[in-house]
Amino acid sequence: MLDEYDIVNLITRRFGELPEGYVPIGDDVALIPPGKTGDSVVLKCDMLVASTDVPPGMSWKMASRKAVAMCVSDFAAKGVAPTAFMVSLGLPRGTPRGQVVALASGLLQASREWNVKLVGGDTGEVDDLIIDIMMVGFAEQIVRRDGARPREYVVTSGTFGQTTAGLRILIDGAKAEPGFRKEAISSLYMPRPRLGLGLAVSRCLSSSMDSSDGLAISLRTISEMSGVGIRLTELPYAKGLEEFASRNSYSAQDLALYGGEEYEIVGTVSRGRIREAKSKARSAGCELRVIGETVSASTLKGVALPDGRRVRRDGWVHFRSKP
Amino acid sequence: MLDEYDIVNLITRRFGELPEGYVPIGDDVALIPPGKTGDSVVLKCDMLVASTDVPPGMSWKMASRKAVAMCVSDFAAKGVAPTAFMVSLGLPRGTPRGQVVALASGLLQASREWNVKLVGGDTGEVDDLIIDIMMVGFAEQIVRRDGARPREYVVTSGTFGQTTAGLRILIDGAKAEPGFRKEAISSLYMPRPRLGLGLAVSRCLSSSMDSSDGLAISLRTISEMSGVGIRLTELPYAKGLEEFASRNSYSAQDLALYGGEEYEIVGTVSRGRIREAKSKARSAGCELRVIGETVSASTLKGVALPDGRRVRRDGWVHFRSKP
Repeated sequence: MLDEYDIVNLITRRFGELPEGYVPIGDDVALIPPGKTGDSVVLKCDMLVASTDVPPGMSWKMASRKAVAMCVSDFAAKGVAPTAFMVSLGLPRGTPRGQVVALASGLLQASREWNVKLVGGDTGEVDDLIIDIMMVGFAEQIVRRDGARPREYVVTSGTFGQTTAGLRILIDGAKAEPGFRKEAISSLYMPRPRLGLGLAVSRCLSSSMDSSDGLAISLRTISEMSGVGIRLTELPYAKGLEEFASRNSYSAQDLALYGGEEYEIVGTVSRGRIREAKSKARSAGCELRVIGETVSASTLKGVALPDGRRVRRDGWVHFRSKP
Repeated sequence: MLDEYDIVNLITRRFGELPEGYVPIGDDVALIPPGKTGDSVVLKCDMLVASTDVPPGMSWKMASRKAVAMCVSDFAAKGVAPTAFMVSLGLPRGTPRGQVVALASGLLQASREWNVKLVGGDTGEVDDLIIDIMMVGFAEQIVRRDGARPREYVVTSGTFGQTTAGLRILIDGAKAEPGFRKEAISSLYMPRPRLGLGLAVSRCLSSSMDSSDGLAISLRTISEMSGVGIRLTELPYAKGLEEFASRNSYSAQDLALYGGEEYEIVGTVSRGRIREAKSKARSAGCELRVIGETVSASTLKGVALPDGRRVRRDGWVHFRSKP
């Protein structure tokens, strides 16, 4: 049976040596060389718990890659390149070697995909699989959630509803056209945080947030923290979402608004910078969509749909939602 | 029933506002002002799992304080003052409000005790209680585990065996004299990492490690990573340990060597700096004990007891040890 030394060894030996200035993995702490003079430290932790965050059919390799992706997505929304990460692994006693190797492969894949170094971690004995990622980077400043002002554009980096559709396919057996099904499940298993886009457009964003708890929660949070109303002009549906929704008697609007697990960026851009933002997004291979505008809080409280109805504060909420 | 927003709110509202330069809790990431120019970032994560790390009778307040203490101890051994921490909480669905308040109180107590700021965190739904602390600080360099050279003194910041005795009292019902019992259990419930000492003597240490996995593992690790042998001249028993051991037919030596949960510093000091190290330790209110010396690896492989027998690589090992 593997003990903690075996587990740490199985993981770390897959990673090459850390560059000069780092302390090799295996000391009490990790040491990461400083950022540019004056740069602050950006820190994020995100805990993946298999029983709530890992959909049916997702391998442990995909799960550990996803755990890293969840943090990368937050960095992307803040316009910061992540530098390094640590991982706390909670594993059941007697976890087979092959599963630990799968976890290591997913971490390695993530490390290469987003150029972020594994610098250390910890293990603990838990009945569930837990992958808690702690990520660090450097920046002079970040794009905050509370920076939106009235009369700005509300933008997103993509469309919504696909991953929630994927969950409904996997968990409820919802029916879908084969191409839609494949892409919906792939978006769940292999999330693609918008790091390139986030780095490209961050200077144009007045506020921004990642949409991992759903579009509705992102919009409501930016609205509440910035003290502005949001009037949506469009709901950015994923391709094929309306057909999927009508086939299974879902509301496409609900799928797009109240889902989660979508690692898009939701933010605001002032009128003067929208052209620049769109052009920078395109250079990063991504379309920045305008889906609405901000108004003063006295004009509108909360977030209004194109038909005037209000967006509820609903989406993925731990200890409330059920997968 | 509390959801994640209630939980986060119950915790964060107990903490005051963060100083200028920090981003308030509640954004996608935490932002921490930079250290001195040229300072690297020091990072540590430590996962406390209630079923293996929380002894009988320990409250959730003590548990969350202990989770922070575990990281502080690693910083102490490296000679680095911690700046801030994040906490990932895994909690069972339906955790009562009072328990969350207890967790918050323990985190707040720890935050004040070691002057380290809570800057963010995450929650997840788990059957066990999990408190994963991620701590960050700044330093030009750290005292590493691999810096010991032959002909140095081996030192510790205290004695050993008391916490292991506490565990045997709580778990196996071992008998103890009331004063010993009280102190043994208190050392388990309220660990006192050696932060003041670590900061005071770090410049004198050639290598160092915290002893949370036991004295034997600390000595063996320094010996292996530094490539030196260690010859012990003394085993630093906690006061009353031998009486406790003989009363319960334990080996005092085993209790002192192969326990764990003792948040002492184990390290090495060159002959030229031992006076300075002892004097600085005393100024920090602590006695630095010389318990042996290092020799070249060709003279001695591993760690030898005063009677010449070898110290095993044994102590607390996750996925192997049983509480």
